[in-house]
Amino acid sequence: MKNIEEKTIHTEKIYEGKIIDLQVDDVVLPDGEKAKREIVKHPGAVAIIPITKDKKIVFVKQYRKPLEKTLVEIPAGKLDDNEQPLAAAIRELEEETGYTTKELNFVTSFYTSPGFADELIYIYITDTLEKLETPVQGDDDEFIEIIELTLDEAKQYVEEEKIHDAKTNYAILYLHALGRM
Amino acid sequence: MKNIEEKTIHTEKIYEGKIIDLQVDDVVLPDGEKAKREIVKHPGAVAIIPITKDKKIVFVKQYRKPLEKTLVEIPAGKLDDNEQPLAAAIRELEEETGYTTKELNFVTSFYTSPGFADELIYIYITDTLEKLETPVQGDDDEFIEIIELTLDEAKQYVEEEKIHDAKTNYAILYLHALGRM
Repeated sequence: MKNIEEKTIHTEKIYEGKIIDLQVDDVVLPDGEKAKREIVKHPGAVAIIPITKDKKIVFVKQYRKPLEKTLVEIPAGKLDDNEQPLAAAIRELEEETGYTTKELNFVTSFYTSPGFADELIYIYITDTLEKLETPVQGDDDEFIEIIELTLDEAKQYVEEEKIHDAKTNYAILYLHALGRM
Repeated sequence: MKNIEEKTIHTEKIYEGKIIDLQVDDVVLPDGEKAKREIVKHPGAVAIIPITKDKKIVFVKQYRKPLEKTLVEIPAGKLDDNEQPLAAAIRELEEETGYTTKELNFVTSFYTSPGFADELIYIYITDTLEKLETPVQGDDDEFIEIIELTLDEAKQYVEEEKIHDAKTNYAILYLHALGRM
């Protein structure tokens, strides 16, 4: 196998933010040439596919500033410091939907955009939702609406690009492939 | 419907790079409070699911600096200035795999990480590949290896997390759901 790795010779920290940091690495390529790599550091994320007793999927509708538009997505959020993905998934489910569960099953994980970011997202599914008696307070700068859709309705949302992000498009295709709804 | 939009009151440009830019927006939330939004600007991307005559999927193996690891991915790349996604997809297919095609079919598009980035990726599929007689030169800072796998082999790569990114995990699930391989 050819060596295709890149060796870091210098890291410049550009920005440290609330959600992401940015750094630019100088690297040596396999042929000895040099190049710059722009790298967004992210703590990682979780997403949940919540299925109700009557086989509806629970989504959140949220304004996404980077896109200047509102998307319908499965509940998700970033990992807190030292938080395990499974714990984060239950926390986000509770904060965003008002449901909780005792059983979350792992579906998959993937890097969202490996060319420039290290964000890794873990996706879970549950069909054993219970309504929380006391709602949990989420992030105070998040304004979301809950929306419950059948799989057919969700597929229509994909067609109309109301659902239009990696984790949620994956979730709809996953439920379609599963063939249980 | 509640108003859940956010109004920009100030944009601070932090970094302008080769692949991405970073800006931080001050926004007014629906309740009148203020918040900061960290936004990565990206030109958009394309990816191709290339299927050979003997029903193998053509992947590229590439070192991903943000992850400090090598991933196996479907061919992909960012849009050049004013480039249409379909043209970009054919260009990337030619540059990265040495194949071309006269027929690419649209599969889906999605934002990869709508919480902090505006990257939109378009995914195409083709099973009418032709070997280029003269290879096309791609980016000179990209070192890639071509690898052709059956769908079953690719699923094993997903299990082993050698395939581990949004567009490629989506592609494997898509081919699985299609049931033709």
